[in-house]
Amino acid sequence: MSFHLAPGAEGIRTRLFHIIFESDTPGAKAFDIALIIAILMSVAVILLDSVEAYSERYGQYFFYVEWAFTLLFSVELAVRIYCLERPTIYLKSFYGIVDLIAIIPTWLVLLVPGAHGLVMVRILRVLRIFRILRLMEFIGEGRLLLDALKRSLRQILLFFSSVLMVVMLFAALMYTIESPESGFTSIPMSMYWAIVSMTTVGYGDIVPATSLGKAITMVLMLLGYSIIAVPTGVFSAQVIRSIREDRYSEEACPGCGHDRHEKRARYCLRCGTWLDEESEDPRQHKKDKSQS
Amino acid sequence: MSFHLAPGAEGIRTRLFHIIFESDTPGAKAFDIALIIAILMSVAVILLDSVEAYSERYGQYFFYVEWAFTLLFSVELAVRIYCLERPTIYLKSFYGIVDLIAIIPTWLVLLVPGAHGLVMVRILRVLRIFRILRLMEFIGEGRLLLDALKRSLRQILLFFSSVLMVVMLFAALMYTIESPESGFTSIPMSMYWAIVSMTTVGYGDIVPATSLGKAITMVLMLLGYSIIAVPTGVFSAQVIRSIREDRYSEEACPGCGHDRHEKRARYCLRCGTWLDEESEDPRQHKKDKSQS
Amino acid sequence: MSFHLAPGAEGIRTRLFHIIFESDTPGAKAFDIALIIAILMSVAVILLDSVEAYSERYGQYFFYVEWAFTLLFSVELAVRIYCLERPTIYLKSFYGIVDLIAIIPTWLVLLVPGAHGLVMVRILRVLRIFRILRLMEFIGEGRLLLDALKRSLRQILLFFSSVLMVVMLFAALMYTIESPESGFTSIPMSMYWAIVSMTTVGYGDIVPATSLGKAITMVLMLLGYSIIAVPTGVFSAQVIRSIREDRYSEEACPGCGHDRHEKRARYCLRCGTWLDEESEDPRQHKKDKSQS
Amino acid sequence: MSFHLAPGAEGIRTRLFHIIFESDTPGAKAFDIALIIAILMSVAVILLDSVEAYSERYGQYFFYVEWAFTLLFSVELAVRIYCLERPTIYLKSFYGIVDLIAIIPTWLVLLVPGAHGLVMVRILRVLRIFRILRLMEFIGEGRLLLDALKRSLRQILLFFSSVLMVVMLFAALMYTIESPESGFTSIPMSMYWAIVSMTTVGYGDIVPATSLGKAITMVLMLLGYSIIAVPTGVFSAQVIRSIREDRYSEEACPGCGHDRHEKRARYCLRCGTWLDEESEDPRQHKKDKSQS
Repeated sequence: MSFHLAPGAEGIRTRLFHIIFESDTPGAKAFDIALIIAILMSVAVILLDSVEAYSERYGQYFFYVEWAFTLLFSVELAVRIYCLERPTIYLKSFYGIVDLIAIIPTWLVLLVPGAHGLVMVRILRVLRIFRILRLMEFIGEGRLLLDALKRSLRQILLFFSSVLMVVMLFAALMYTIESPESGFTSIPMSMYWAIVSMTTVGYGDIVPATSLGKAITMVLMLLGYSIIAVPTGVFSAQVIRSIREDRYSEEACPGCGHDRHEKRARYCLRCGTWLDEESEDPRQHKKDKSQS
Repeated sequence: MSFHLAPGAEGIRTRLFHIIFESDTPGAKAFDIALIIAILMSVAVILLDSVEAYSERYGQYFFYVEWAFTLLFSVELAVRIYCLERPTIYLKSFYGIVDLIAIIPTWLVLLVPGAHGLVMVRILRVLRIFRILRLMEFIGEGRLLLDALKRSLRQILLFFSSVLMVVMLFAALMYTIESPESGFTSIPMSMYWAIVSMTTVGYGDIVPATSLGKAITMVLMLLGYSIIAVPTGVFSAQVIRSIREDRYSEEACPGCGHDRHEKRARYCLRCGTWLDEESEDPRQHKKDKSQS
Repeated sequence: MSFHLAPGAEGIRTRLFHIIFESDTPGAKAFDIALIIAILMSVAVILLDSVEAYSERYGQYFFYVEWAFTLLFSVELAVRIYCLERPTIYLKSFYGIVDLIAIIPTWLVLLVPGAHGLVMVRILRVLRIFRILRLMEFIGEGRLLLDALKRSLRQILLFFSSVLMVVMLFAALMYTIESPESGFTSIPMSMYWAIVSMTTVGYGDIVPATSLGKAITMVLMLLGYSIIAVPTGVFSAQVIRSIREDRYSEEACPGCGHDRHEKRARYCLRCGTWLDEESEDPRQHKKDKSQS
Repeated sequence: MSFHLAPGAEGIRTRLFHIIFESDTPGAKAFDIALIIAILMSVAVILLDSVEAYSERYGQYFFYVEWAFTLLFSVELAVRIYCLERPTIYLKSFYGIVDLIAIIPTWLVLLVPGAHGLVMVRILRVLRIFRILRLMEFIGEGRLLLDALKRSLRQILLFFSSVLMVVMLFAALMYTIESPESGFTSIPMSMYWAIVSMTTVGYGDIVPATSLGKAITMVLMLLGYSIIAVPTGVFSAQVIRSIREDRYSEEACPGCGHDRHEKRARYCLRCGTWLDEESEDPRQHKKDKSQS
């Protein structure tokens, strides 16, 4: 990350910065692991607290544990802010917002009187679970996947537009053919059915009742079954390409600066300069011979 | 598109042609975006109008909005016809027919007295939604996908024929084994079940009741689960081929005969020979200079 | 096909052989198309006849049409046998058996008195539908697919054995955890559930009721969802390989007879002989020079 | 396997070792096949015994057969231990534990009085089925698959973490939106629903009831439908790489430096130089002969 240290930062502040924002010293690694464990545990408590049977019996304990985690995360955020030169930039970044979402809901329940209402508490409980997103910092590298995704993005958007068009046409068709009693009460409802069928989920809460409807459903299912080959094929191709480009060396040509040569290339494909600096160019050799 | 302008077309007519049928000037781009928004909004109105709760409350407004869009699309079609030399050819083309489908249903309800009937109105409502197909003009490029699809078409048709054959045999088997009470009332109904099972949709509206039927179902499901690898594999291979062939030139190096150079290569990566025969090697140039 | 003509076959017999068993003359092509249409139509009649509503109204007509097709196929089989030298070999081959299955059931109903029973008729009706397999002769080429399938067969069998092992262990687990009331009445029944879940079919006729059962189901579903990547990956790789081997030339080395060279190869990879017979070996050239 | 023979092992002991632990002599192969058949048959008996209808009628026979197999496997394990030098190491290995699991449950029922209880018997019955794992020794090679799996492991774990994060967020959302009456009684229950939907299983035991819930479900289903492309793409790429790397040697041509020869190549496909440095070029041989 590129958050800079306060300029006059000394001793403890610099050390805290290295521990919290980096991950290459033993202390920083220990901090990362402790943070991951704390997040997973606090999420587990939220999950268990939502189960009525547990919440009735252990609700009191869950309440204390939740407060312990909230205080912990609050202290952590305070330290983060303390050791940064421009904390507002951090607070506006993705991880800054996630940090705030991880602690604000619990504080709100305490501070805002109206927040004790049932609906409000339910929504705040959901918000707290978003602290799981902080783990993205630790798994969010995956450069190869992101590289392949970025390249196939255009094709996949194209695929999605086509899928939505097919869904809309089949939904409109079925809305005309099937009666509302079978569940096809509106076109949006038919679209829900069409997506359930085309993605091969198939809940079975809405199914065609007429023969014509069943015939159309068969076509839609076969379409959805085979069309999945398109994003899979595109993405496979891009992953293969990403792996293959590992074949390209990072070094630039000494002649023209071009830097995307296959590793096996011996001459620059742009200016013809000999690339392997450790050995001699056989052409040079020949010229030297012919000169002597 | 290749629709030609009326020959005596002057000033306004030429300008309209460029705005409507092309997309490389700011005006044309603005027109395209406005058209996309109008289509999406009018489709959204159709969707909402089909929901009874909304249609009862806002039906009157939807009616006016629908007429506004219909008038808009009618004017647009009139202008398209006005600035073309041979409008009938356009009207018979795919987008011409979609243009007509986008406006005719609403006019029909007004003009034809019998169209006020419930069934007729329902069908016309479906037809109006087909105006979404006009968006295909904007997403319908995807050359890479089409290229790969065209190449794997034969294999995919082969795959579909085999799937249908398997479906028919399993359907006939289950029709004999299972009783009509379980839903296997006829072979076509069993085929519906077989496709629901093989495509892994699995609504659950028809399920086997006997042990033998369940055993056969297991085989069918495993078959459907693994057979999806076939179109996916074929399509993946073709996408990879399409991407690769985009990158390598077909021409061989005049120096050493190596024939798998990337298109951007100017020097052979094996022997350093200048590849572009139509222009001169800059190195040669330098040598010539140093000699003179 | 490699069925030989009767030796003394003359005039009409030879001509019939070419029309029926080959497909490169206009007459033979017309015969093929007529046969495909007849098979599809007769199968359509079987399908419709199994629907009670149609069978009650048009049963009599279906009966006549079925007999017409049976006579047609019987005559065709008679002609096939007539123009072959060793008809018994044909009758024992795959297509010979399919030919017999296509006509025998209908004859049986007429000839065997006991065949009028309901169960027997139902089974015979199923058997008749197997005549669809005769179409395999027309779609059964797909050399690329078969090639790729043959190569990935070993890996796919491995995959299936692993899937069945996973299914068995999860089935046994769920049989212990869930009560018979939820549908897990026996291990085979649990296996049916495990396959329904793992292949992502998900009928919903048997679903876990306990929390532990649901947790195990989540693991099984995620496993089934991601494990499909294995056969798909293996098959994709093999199709790509099959396409790539198109890169190999068919011509044998004049030196050693080796016949699997990449098309771009200039020297035999086995004996080093110059492969391109139309041009001269540069090595030879050098030797000639050094000799002179 | 690397289990060593007892040092003083003679005659029969050595022979038993070769038959049981190896598989390259006719006797060892026969033993392997007999073992596979015995395992499959004993598993089949366990499956049938769990079906009430069969267990009631043939329970007594199943009991005897089960004891016969248990004695057989016990003798086999005794012989294995007898012919090994350090049997405890074997007993602690994976297959040793599986061997014990295959026989201990049946012995337990006889020896431990309390084991006659229903629950205990049910659990022991499950344990017995784990003897199917012994078959892994015979199918557990699949080096290509394991190689590809190992390489894509990191990417697939990344994929799983992302899936679980998406599942958790959608589960929390739906828990807030949908009422407990629809089945969304807790966040873990919502997670069960989210996994059922995202993996396209779609049992239909929990489905969204509100419009907003259905809209979110559509997004989740489309996500699950297309995200499967990620592990498939990664795995395909790795299988392709594994196959390819099996084919090309790493060594470069001493003549021209070309470094992508198939392993079977003996001459460089670019310059015709002899590649195998450890033996002599047969062409050289001929020349030498012709010179002398």
